Amino acid sequence: MTITSTTLSPSELSALKTKYEQLGQGHVFQFFDELNAEDQGALLDQLVGIDVARLNGIYDKAIQASAAAASPNGEHEALVEPLTKDVFDTVLTSDDDDNHSRKRKRQEIQDWETLGLSLIAKNQVAVILMAGGQGTRLGSSAPKGCYDIDLPSKKSLFQLQAERILRLQELAQQYALPQQQKVVIPWYIMTSGPTNQPTVDFFKKHNFFGLDEQNITFFEQGTLPCLTMDGKIILEGKGKVAIAPDGNGGIYAAVQNKGVIDDMKRRGIMYSHCYCVDNCLARVADPVFIGYCVSKQTDCGVKVVRKTQPDEPVGVVCRRGGRYGVVEYSEISQELSERRDEEDGSLTLRAANIANHFFSTAFLDRVPEFAGELEYHIAKKKIKHVDLATGQQIVPTSNSGMKLECFVFDIFPFAKQFSVLEVDRKEEFSPLKNAPGSGVDCPETSRRDIIAQHVRFIQAAGGSIKGVSQNIVEATEVPDDLNFELSSWVSYAGEGLSDVVNGKVIVPPAVIETRQDLVNFTQQ
Amino acid sequence: MTITSTTLSPSELSALKTKYEQLGQGHVFQFFDELNAEDQGALLDQLVGIDVARLNGIYDKAIQASAAAASPNGEHEALVEPLTKDVFDTVLTSDDDDNHSRKRKRQEIQDWETLGLSLIAKNQVAVILMAGGQGTRLGSSAPKGCYDIDLPSKKSLFQLQAERILRLQELAQQYALPQQQKVVIPWYIMTSGPTNQPTVDFFKKHNFFGLDEQNITFFEQGTLPCLTMDGKIILEGKGKVAIAPDGNGGIYAAVQNKGVIDDMKRRGIMYSHCYCVDNCLARVADPVFIGYCVSKQTDCGVKVVRKTQPDEPVGVVCRRGGRYGVVEYSEISQELSERRDEEDGSLTLRAANIANHFFSTAFLDRVPEFAGELEYHIAKKKIKHVDLATGQQIVPTSNSGMKLECFVFDIFPFAKQFSVLEVDRKEEFSPLKNAPGSGVDCPETSRRDIIAQHVRFIQAAGGSIKGVSQNIVEATEVPDDLNFELSSWVSYAGEGLSDVVNGKVIVPPAVIETRQDLVNFTQQ
Repeated sequence: MTITSTTLSPSELSALKTKYEQLGQGHVFQFFDELNAEDQGALLDQLVGIDVARLNGIYDKAIQASAAAASPNGEHEALVEPLTKDVFDTVLTSDDDDNHSRKRKRQEIQDWETLGLSLIAKNQVAVILMAGGQGTRLGSSAPKGCYDIDLPSKKSLFQLQAERILRLQELAQQYALPQQQKVVIPWYIMTSGPTNQPTVDFFKKHNFFGLDEQNITFFEQGTLPCLTMDGKIILEGKGKVAIAPDGNGGIYAAVQNKGVIDDMKRRGIMYSHCYCVDNCLARVADPVFIGYCVSKQTDCGVKVVRKTQPDEPVGVVCRRGGRYGVVEYSEISQELSERRDEEDGSLTLRAANIANHFFSTAFLDRVPEFAGELEYHIAKKKIKHVDLATGQQIVPTSNSGMKLECFVFDIFPFAKQFSVLEVDRKEEFSPLKNAPGSGVDCPETSRRDIIAQHVRFIQAAGGSIKGVSQNIVEATEVPDDLNFELSSWVSYAGEGLSDVVNGKVIVPPAVIETRQDLVNFTQQ
Repeated sequence: MTITSTTLSPSELSALKTKYEQLGQGHVFQFFDELNAEDQGALLDQLVGIDVARLNGIYDKAIQASAAAASPNGEHEALVEPLTKDVFDTVLTSDDDDNHSRKRKRQEIQDWETLGLSLIAKNQVAVILMAGGQGTRLGSSAPKGCYDIDLPSKKSLFQLQAERILRLQELAQQYALPQQQKVVIPWYIMTSGPTNQPTVDFFKKHNFFGLDEQNITFFEQGTLPCLTMDGKIILEGKGKVAIAPDGNGGIYAAVQNKGVIDDMKRRGIMYSHCYCVDNCLARVADPVFIGYCVSKQTDCGVKVVRKTQPDEPVGVVCRRGGRYGVVEYSEISQELSERRDEEDGSLTLRAANIANHFFSTAFLDRVPEFAGELEYHIAKKKIKHVDLATGQQIVPTSNSGMKLECFVFDIFPFAKQFSVLEVDRKEEFSPLKNAPGSGVDCPETSRRDIIAQHVRFIQAAGGSIKGVSQNIVEATEVPDDLNFELSSWVSYAGEGLSDVVNGKVIVPPAVIETRQDLVNFTQQ
């Protein structure tokens, strides 16, 4: 995204300096005259791209919001309310539900799914993937989506997701008109500066995992300069502004600025599913979720899982001061996080945010109208910088500045129709956050959770897997060394298996990549 | 196919006359000089198109074969042998089979089906439909495929078959490579002179039933002149040769002459399934049959049903004099037709021919090599003709001449690898031959047999239909007025239903046209 070798006329350079000075950021030119022509050009590349007035505005709002959040808990918390039934539904049934309720719920879910598949069949649904992160905490500098969680197939996270798209395209084809061309679910993949090229290369190397290259679009997340605690742009070097990604909420600006919305309109896309790359169980373009949201005429929706432990450090979707949003674990008192509903004893604030969203294209297109009102969050960091007095670069040992980040959920208050769907955590959420061996949200739990799901699919279809107990529920019930895997390309959510496996046994090792494999491996 | 207004130079006309005279058919020119120019041109159109030497040869062979068939039964029958196990298999199990045998048989069928679907997925399979007949006996002069057997949906036979192709294309897509274009099963439809244009019009009017027009090819069956009992070409009028279709075996010449084989080669078609339009249960492009035949490296295969009543008037596939063929009911004695195997008491000659075939493209391409050896059959008919002495047209009240017909099965002896598969009659064969109300092979039995199959599909998938007993087998168990129907586009052979209907009830009226309908109608 760099404009190579920016050159300005003397008068243009003078105007740029004046603008920065008037907005209190003139120090970025402090070492300009010391730089050689090449370094000057590179610095100018950065400076002409920064909307300084907007940056200052973001800083001011962030500082005010930060101050408000720091006010006494009681006052702050009084504004937090759980979601009401008009915006909330669930796919879960409770142990207390009678058969009739369970049947009705199953029917409701099936109706959502059918609606979702019909919309996919009309080529109205796209997928937006938030994949800007690197696997730094996992010990890898590659894009997180390239990570291999050691499945028998050695598939990357990207491939797991691609196969779900492939399968859904096939499933939805049954709802398409016969003469229609193939169903297509376009995939928009948001990368970041350091991950963009490696991501593109990885997809090319793997032949786009069987998807059509023409339906995959890579676009880079935006960045913002890092600021000192008092709001000054940080110079990382004499000729370089320190920058950082603008948070996953930067997706709204990026889809506007990088041509994604234009492409969606060209293709007739009406709805998008947006999710984060690190969740190996993500039901990409989930027809149930899409059908649910569309049936409620939702413009902005969110998928959540149930928080069951009060001390689980997750953000919770709620209302705060009458506006929908997410409160972080750290923002509320122990008392509030432990509060339970009288009705069934579940946590009152239980709608755990998993960065899994529904947007109408109209909503995405409307974001610029209220983008100025968006609140950015301050993340204090140790940021390398040049001492303005000495010109020396300093590598700090404590927080020396801030990154400014916007989150996807910061947009919730601007939805005309906001909807939340609670789904089954074990089927849909297993994030990859931590290093191997850490035991929580790590490669081992990702692997285990996926394989357990595949086992449940086979068992629900009437089949069994040698060496695995019948009717397993939890991933811990599956032997750690089970060499069994079922590609999502064969079954997205358990469908289409019973015709082949009902009443039969699959004997591991069995890595089922295709429908043909499914048949072959059930011959025993 | 008429070449409008043939004009010949005097020397060309003279040569043509000489040819006909030398071959004993000079009488066709008897009234030529009486005709006006237009009628002369029309007669020449016919005459230049007739291969007189071939026609005479066909007559000679047919007369010899007819004489041989008229020889004493004992001698003739001694040459008839049932099929041996190396060329025969079945999808049926017997009541005596143990669970292990049943399981092995199911597995074998599934293996054939998977192979068949894989070949379809590679776009190597086409369908040839024999649809030259009119619905004369049904009281309709329209092509037989247009007939409406009064299903709730009022679908024609053509549409029933089209929907099976649509569904198979979808099913096979699961075995195709992800980036492959849509699976296509080309459909070659053999019409005849009187049915060709009405058939094309019917398909156009119905928008090709959702298939892509580019994958449907209509081609006309060939014709042969009708002959007097002593082998002379019959003139129907002074300027018109009496002609008749050359039998369903004319398909071999037609696929050569009408560009069908060329089109197959261009598309990479390796195998064809060929069937007759009047069987409403025809499993078009049946992957089980295709997989079976290909697994045995078959070049010419035939599907049969089990003959259970000795007096059923069907042809039976067998060996005769060491060559594979079909013996007609009328050709064998009561004793032979009643003979039973000692092993299980089934009829020894039980492989009832249902005009349902498998061909490799290589085999079809090889037919011209042995076409000269093919035997034509004599069908004696009342044929309008001109009295050569008086020039008067005579409408006879008894048989006055013959049509010459070749049958599809006349080619069996030339197969390098011949294979026969026995299938379940109630699932695959219900021909439409007779007028409404006749009670046998009539519109009512067609309708009943299809609906009963749809009921069995739902019940086998764990669903039920209100007002219908559980686990029906025979069509007579289904109420006559049941207003229920399941499009083959939703399920070709019962697959893909249990995900939706298992444990649920469908309440008629329910005409299920799409997967969406299936979901809607199982809401009760």
